[in-house]
This record gives sequence, C-alpha cells and structure tokens, in this order.
Amino acid sequence: MKFEVVPGGVTAAKGFKASGVPAGVKYIGRKDIALVCSDCLAAAAGVFTTNLVKAAPVLLNMERLASGKARAIVVNSGNANACNGARGMEDALAMAREAAGLLGIDAGEVLVASTGVIGQPMPMDRVIPGIAAAVAALSPSGGEDAAEAIMTTDIELKQYAVSFELGGRKVTVGGMAKGSGMIHPNMATMLCFITSDAAVSPACLKECLTCAVDRSFNMVTVDGDTSTNDMVLALANGEAGNDEISTGGEGFDLFREALAEVCTSLAKSVARDGEGATKLIEVQVINAAGDQDARLAARAVAASSLFKAAVFGQDANWGRAICAAGYSGARFNPAAVDIYLGDVQVARDGGSLAFDEDAAAAVLAGKEVRVLIDFKEGDHWATAWGCDLTYEYVKINGSYRT
Amino acid sequence: MKFEVVPGGVTAAKGFKASGVPAGVKYIGRKDIALVCSDCLAAAAGVFTTNLVKAAPVLLNMERLASGKARAIVVNSGNANACNGARGMEDALAMAREAAGLLGIDAGEVLVASTGVIGQPMPMDRVIPGIAAAVAALSPSGGEDAAEAIMTTDIELKQYAVSFELGGRKVTVGGMAKGSGMIHPNMATMLCFITSDAAVSPACLKECLTCAVDRSFNMVTVDGDTSTNDMVLALANGEAGNDEISTGGEGFDLFREALAEVCTSLAKSVARDGEGATKLIEVQVINAAGDQDARLAARAVAASSLFKAAVFGQDANWGRAICAAGYSGARFNPAAVDIYLGDVQVARDGGSLAFDEDAAAAVLAGKEVRVLIDFKEGDHWATAWGCDLTYEYVKINGSYRT
Repeated sequence: MKFEVVPGGVTAAKGFKASGVPAGVKYIGRKDIALVCSDCLAAAAGVFTTNLVKAAPVLLNMERLASGKARAIVVNSGNANACNGARGMEDALAMAREAAGLLGIDAGEVLVASTGVIGQPMPMDRVIPGIAAAVAALSPSGGEDAAEAIMTTDIELKQYAVSFELGGRKVTVGGMAKGSGMIHPNMATMLCFITSDAAVSPACLKECLTCAVDRSFNMVTVDGDTSTNDMVLALANGEAGNDEISTGGEGFDLFREALAEVCTSLAKSVARDGEGATKLIEVQVINAAGDQDARLAARAVAASSLFKAAVFGQDANWGRAICAAGYSGARFNPAAVDIYLGDVQVARDGGSLAFDEDAAAAVLAGKEVRVLIDFKEGDHWATAWGCDLTYEYVKINGSYRT
Repeated sequence: MKFEVVPGGVTAAKGFKASGVPAGVKYIGRKDIALVCSDCLAAAAGVFTTNLVKAAPVLLNMERLASGKARAIVVNSGNANACNGARGMEDALAMAREAAGLLGIDAGEVLVASTGVIGQPMPMDRVIPGIAAAVAALSPSGGEDAAEAIMTTDIELKQYAVSFELGGRKVTVGGMAKGSGMIHPNMATMLCFITSDAAVSPACLKECLTCAVDRSFNMVTVDGDTSTNDMVLALANGEAGNDEISTGGEGFDLFREALAEVCTSLAKSVARDGEGATKLIEVQVINAAGDQDARLAARAVAASSLFKAAVFGQDANWGRAICAAGYSGARFNPAAVDIYLGDVQVARDGGSLAFDEDAAAAVLAGKEVRVLIDFKEGDHWATAWGCDLTYEYVKINGSYRT
C-alpha cells in the first residue's frame, strides 16, 4: 500500500490546529462553528461552485485565493449566507476579520465558508462570539470537532487522512467534508477542506486539487442540485520539510495521488450519506470512446431518480440505467452495451438476458451496489457515485427550513 | 373564448374512430391496446424523444413519417419494446401489419407506439389477438377507451379537445396523452396522440406541432428522466372541409393556437398526475434577457428535487428556486431577482424579505402552486410545469417492474 491511512482528519498533517464549537447559529447546543488554522502561512487553492448564484463566502474566497496563500478557514453551518445582498459580504468579511484579530494574523489570510439555509441574514450576534470560542478551543487534535461542526443533515462525520514518504520525509494529506443534499456534479461540491504539511507551490497545489476534484467530488451526485455554496479548499504549509513539489517534479505524482485518494474517500462518504440514503451506488462506465462519454454516462445513471428508486426497491431494472446513459449526451452504440449489477450480467448487446433474478436481488440488497456498464467501443472509463432515493429523502427535504 | 372545449378526445374530430381493449400485455383485465384510425389517409407529423436509446416503434415511426401521411396508430401499454434488438423492430412491424391487414389499409400507413418496461420481449402471442379485438371494437365514440388503454402508472385519464370556426367550417383538434414518470424537457415527451379534421399540409402540420410541443410537453418535468419511447403524433384528415391550411395562410395562426391549447392542457394534466404527486407546480419566469434564459430557468426550478420536496412539505424555501435558476445555464443578475409564491412576494432583488409565512403556507397548501420569478432584465418569458416530490413517487418507482 502506497499510502498509510492515519487518524486526525484536518489536523493529521503537521502544523495544523482545528476546533468546532456550538454557537447557536440555527440550533442550540449543536457544534456549528469550525476553525482550521495553520501555524504558518500556507499555499492555498480552491475549487468553487459553478452556480451563477454564489454565496458571499464563495465570492470572498475566489478573490482572496488570487494570492495563492492563506492561513485559516472559518466555517459555519446552519446558515448559507447566500442571497443576502451587500450585507452577506459584510458578514463574511466580519467573520474573517474577527478570526484574524484573535489569531493575530492578517484578515486577508482567512478564508470563509457557510452552509445551511439560503436567504436568511446571518445571526452575527451569535456567530461572532462563536468565532471567539472557536479560536480559544483550537487544538492539534481538534480535527474531529471541526468535522462535526460543519455537518447539517449529515448523519456520519466525514474525515480521512493518509501519509506517505517523500525524499525521507513523512508527508500527510488530510481532510473533512460535509454534504448530503444539494449535491451534483459540475460544481466544486458541498464543503470540503484539505490540509497538508507538504511543501508545494500554490500553482501545483491548484493543479492537483482540480484534478482530484474532477475524479471525486465532480463524480458524486445526490439529487441533481448544484448548490450556491459548494467549495473545496486546500492548505499546504510545508512543515513536512520536503523539497517543494512542483508540476512534473519529484513527488508530484505521489502528492496528486494522495490528494485524489483523500478526495475520493470523502466524496464516497458524501454519497453514502446522501439524504435518506440506505445504499451507496457506484457506477463504472468502461470501454467508452472518450473520457467525456464515460463521465457523462456514469453520472447520468448515478443521478437518475428512476434508477435510484429502483435500487432502493431492489428491483434489477437495468432498462433505466441504459435509458439514463442514452439521454446523458454520451456517444455510444446502444446495441453494444453490456450491463452488470455486481457480478451478475443483466443485459448483453443492449438487450435483455435471462439472468438470475435472485442473484441480482442479492446484489441490490447490499449496502454498496456496483453497476458496470461496458460500451465496448474504446478504452476510456469513469466512475460516479450516488445513493438510492428513499422516502426519507423526501421527508428531510419537505421540512428543511423548520 | 376563441375555442370551444368539446368532449371526445381523439374521436372528437370528424372521421376518426378509436378503441381500447384488454389484451393481458402485462396485467390481466386492464385495457392495454389502443387503436386510433382515420376514415381516410391523413396528413401526419411526429416529434420524438432525443434519447440516444430509442425504442423500436420510435425508429419505425421516424422512418414512416417521411411520407407525411398515415391513417392509423396502434399503441400498447405494459411493455416499452425498447432494447429488444432486431426482434423489437420485427415485433413493431408485425403490430402495424396486423392492424393494417384487418383494417384493409397499407401497412406503411400504420404508426406504432409502446410504453412500459424496457428490455423485455413483447408478448406477441397476446398483442396480436389484442390488435384484432381493438380493430373489432373501433367506434366513433372510442376516444375514452383508447385514452384508458395507454395509461401505465397514470391515475387520471388524459384527453382534451377544442373546436373553432374557420371559413364557415367547424374544425376540431383533440388528443390524448399518457405519462407520469420518466418525464423531462427536451424530449418529444411521454405519449401523446392528436387528431384533427382540419385540412392542412403535412409540412404545416409538422411546423405547428413542433411549435406546440416546444411550449407544452417540452416544458413539463416530473423526474428529469427522458424516456426511450416518448413521442407526440398528429393526424389531420381534412374532413372538416376547410380550405387547406398552409404556413402563413388563412387559419394558420388559429390552427397553431388550437394545437398548442390541446398540447398545453394535456401537458399540464401529465404534470398534475406526476407519479405520487399531490400538487401541480407552475413556474413562470418573466422579463428574461432571452427566450432560452427564461426556458432554462423555469424548467430547472420545476425540476429541482429540493424545491419539489419543499413544495410537498409546504415550506416556502425560495432559496432553492433561485439556486436552481442559478445552475440552469440561464443568464440573469442574481441581485435583481424577485420571487413570488402565488401573490406573496418572498424575495426582492435576490434577497430575503420579511414576508407573511402564513400567507405563503396557504399558497403552498393549494393543489396548484404558482411560482413567479422576475429577472427584471428583458421581455422574454416562459412557463414550465412540474409536480411535488413525495413519498409515493419513491414507492411507485421502487417496485415498478413487479
């Protein structure tokens, strides 16, 4: 194994502290302010939602990351700070200023993220004291508290970290994520924060992050809704003491792979924790003519409400999978497609097959359902992750604001 | 009122007979074969699914409509005849041949449509006798039986017809539709069959039909899935005795409007009857910079799982509406958007507003929920229809094949 899985999430890497505290942003007694802070100025990069409507913190970070440097990230759950007009930006700036003042750093070195209800002004009278409490609670073992504070409808806490050797130095990449609704490809994604002690140039960090997000968060779908607040931020502070990684240089591939491994693990945990989900669905399209064909088809199948509902009902309705691939925009020959549920082939050459319904039902009864779609055309492939569509999804989203 | 609503559906127009009979295609004792037949050869036009994976009847009709003429349409529910390889096309041809033989017309004048499960061979041993029974049952008052026979998970029977005066002649346009799942814009749509006794050139009929579908079925969304089988077919047999309508000529605008009225009424009934739906959602986007901007935004809001679930839960979560508009691809200024639920303004200039929650809840408690989104930029507008997302949708689609 190239990478060693290590505990600690965003505080697994050297030189990072974190905290998560309750501030009553939306609920009393629930952790809702998270803070992540590097001991020194770090290379920083971000990937952001493609939604035309962007929350204030998204706009703020996009501007700040032009410098390629940052030291801290302050996050609240319970309120998205989106669609709040000029006041939204003032509040985001105030959050960064408050954290910076107490940390004794420049306000421009603080990034901000929010998640929760859209279109309600931030309760700054509770957020500001919450930030003070978060600064006071910062700890080298605070990763888990921070991961807990960014949860909204999430059931599982999501963090993951790996270490590897690079030129005799131990390098660590860790992260945390939140998200279980409003999740769909072609956005940066829900919220995800990555920390690393690698020494890496800002440009190289951005390149590796974009590549990792493309294969992980951009291939996850829960409900087809791309949020106003999604972002993935990465900080790399160089405390591992390795020679600085740059594009194509020593350690580049290894670092990029580690980042992708952390992003993929977190992205899968987001899909598995999709609102109301009972199953993780993994859709792999192989032998496609082009990369885009594989990606489009895999995502469309993972996103299809009809297919998701069939998986929930443990119904081997493969026709809905080929139908979704058909409207995805992918190019393929419908008459050549083979489909497998787990190890059970359920369609051959785009048509029906006398398959063992019991064996297929057994695959669908599992917690992880693998769907393999073979286009038999070229050599491109892609994997997408989603979850089943359940009664619970409707229940959660029918009463989210209340 | 320009148009008079008349009874009879596809048999409202002069010179049409129809029938609907049970053949046991999927269930015993349920009408599942429909036949529509004109007394004479009619101008014919069709609009078809954009899905790359097309059912055999879709491919057959696309080819046959090159002639611009047809006399009959034979339809089965209970099996989609999609993804059945060469056998699928043979079966579709056999259905047309059987109907033509018994009707004493040319097989090339019969169009075919199917709806139901994908990837299961057609039970031709039951379909063929069913077609014979349908021919025997043809009646000038058979519109309702035919409309019943094309239903699958539909709860309501869907038919509508209007009459109007043209040059001293009474012209009628009627139709029937089925569809409540796998429904999404940018396809022809579910199944819809229109009949008219107007004399109209095939080219003009095609033009009017495309225009009507664009403003009706292409603006309806239930679950974001574009099916392999969707089609709208129109037959116009000239029995009204009017002077032939051609593009731009006398009666053109009136006929086009009548066709649009029938399509819109049927499209709304499809949205209202969305699988598991309890409410019709009408989303109107006004004052957009361009036609596409209005269409994209209206459809995205009507299609958003999160917004649909909020409407089901009677939660005035307008943030999900602006979020969906934001990822739709429409161009607009997020800081200018006003949003209304019914008569209650819930957002102004892209931001929150102290609105009367009780009044908004009362709007959401109705059977028809109107959402108005004002971009305040140009003078283009579009209307889309959808339905709420409910527990029942998941239940219906978790066990569709069984």
